Amino acid sequence: MQNWRCNLFSEFDLAPTRLAQQIQFVLEIDKLKGVLRQTLLTDASRRENSAEHSWHLALMAIALAEYAPASIDLSRVVQMLLLHDLVEIDAGNTFAFDIQANQDKAEREQAAADRLFGLLPPDLGQPLRACWEEFEAAETVDAQFAHALDRFQPFLHNLQTEGGTWRLHGITCDRVLGRMQPVKQGAPALWPIVEALIHQAVAAGYLLPDPDTTPPSDRSYPDRLHPD
Amino acid sequence: MQNWRCNLFSEFDLAPTRLAQQIQFVLEIDKLKGVLRQTLLTDASRRENSAEHSWHLALMAIALAEYAPASIDLSRVVQMLLLHDLVEIDAGNTFAFDIQANQDKAEREQAAADRLFGLLPPDLGQPLRACWEEFEAAETVDAQFAHALDRFQPFLHNLQTEGGTWRLHGITCDRVLGRMQPVKQGAPALWPIVEALIHQAVAAGYLLPDPDTTPPSDRSYPDRLHPD
Repeated sequence: MQNWRCNLFSEFDLAPTRLAQQIQFVLEIDKLKGVLRQTLLTDASRRENSAEHSWHLALMAIALAEYAPASIDLSRVVQMLLLHDLVEIDAGNTFAFDIQANQDKAEREQAAADRLFGLLPPDLGQPLRACWEEFEAAETVDAQFAHALDRFQPFLHNLQTEGGTWRLHGITCDRVLGRMQPVKQGAPALWPIVEALIHQAVAAGYLLPDPDTTPPSDRSYPDRLHPD
Repeated sequence: MQNWRCNLFSEFDLAPTRLAQQIQFVLEIDKLKGVLRQTLLTDASRRENSAEHSWHLALMAIALAEYAPASIDLSRVVQMLLLHDLVEIDAGNTFAFDIQANQDKAEREQAAADRLFGLLPPDLGQPLRACWEEFEAAETVDAQFAHALDRFQPFLHNLQTEGGTWRLHGITCDRVLGRMQPVKQGAPALWPIVEALIHQAVAAGYLLPDPDTTPPSDRSYPDRLHPD
């Protein structure tokens, strides 16, 4: 890679270094296709990778935009969703319910952002880095809608796969309710559906009841499940 | 899926049918992650699927926008690239150099577009269908830039994988030059690099020389390659 790119751009006088940086970024981000998430595809055939997940969220933003606050900038939300997981190329994907791995997640992702957005010329890399920082801060309506979709998509996949990672890891409904709070904030019109689906998921045995409110003797779920 | 969705939406009075259609579309498009292209990932570990390919192109549009004609609408190009391959969920991915499979491609893809965009409420589905038709027609600058990226990305992957699908299928450089013409039209500033890389690919043995200009006795390529 180094060779052909160096050979190539030495022959051109059209800002070779700039284009080389852009092509290097384009080739580098291909690695996100190899970063696996815990979430299963809806046919349960395999785990989802973070690149195809990002594509799914971007199209969800377009299909579900009407459930966002009226003031969102949809094209900015789409860009934010396309790049929101790029840092996982270096930092890896951290399972939402893995408390230990989430402790140093922020540091690992900041270092990854330095390297990855730093591959681009600053006039391109800095605005994209700022868009990612905006997503991470989750303070703007655009970022809050993006977060809502980032929680709603794996939620739908877990329902579609009869509990998916919830059953695999023995997740209780109180933790899913907590995990889904960004939907309440960023796409409030979707919250009633989320609550209703969580109740149906518990009734269907896809999700464990809240351990604080349900005595273990009253719980019903397959033996293979191991609640927290 | 049918059951929980029907149960759920019968309990709500917030345009249940509309939201049900949108969620059905969101779940249906997950299938694009299972449609494999001929192109390999840049680490040659596996074939790329059409969902992650679409994500890659959308971010390429953002990183390489300056090489497009000044008049493009970048957010429209990004939307176009996100949905340009959705029809492959029904029609499958047709290898660029498979002449026979390309003969009825258009019919198969029109039927797929009818079904897939038809899953959405018309006020959402019709504009997305129109955006896909615009891509297919390749007459606007937005569509032509999108096509240029759709050709440039697998081109970079083939170079990065020492010939990738070119070597696998014994493709000659004249066919790649023809295949890459949309770059000349949609992103003319990238054309000199494409031409130079094709020459380097032939010199490196990643791509076969033009059979019409090179006598077989003069060709040099690994024995395992089978030219057309």
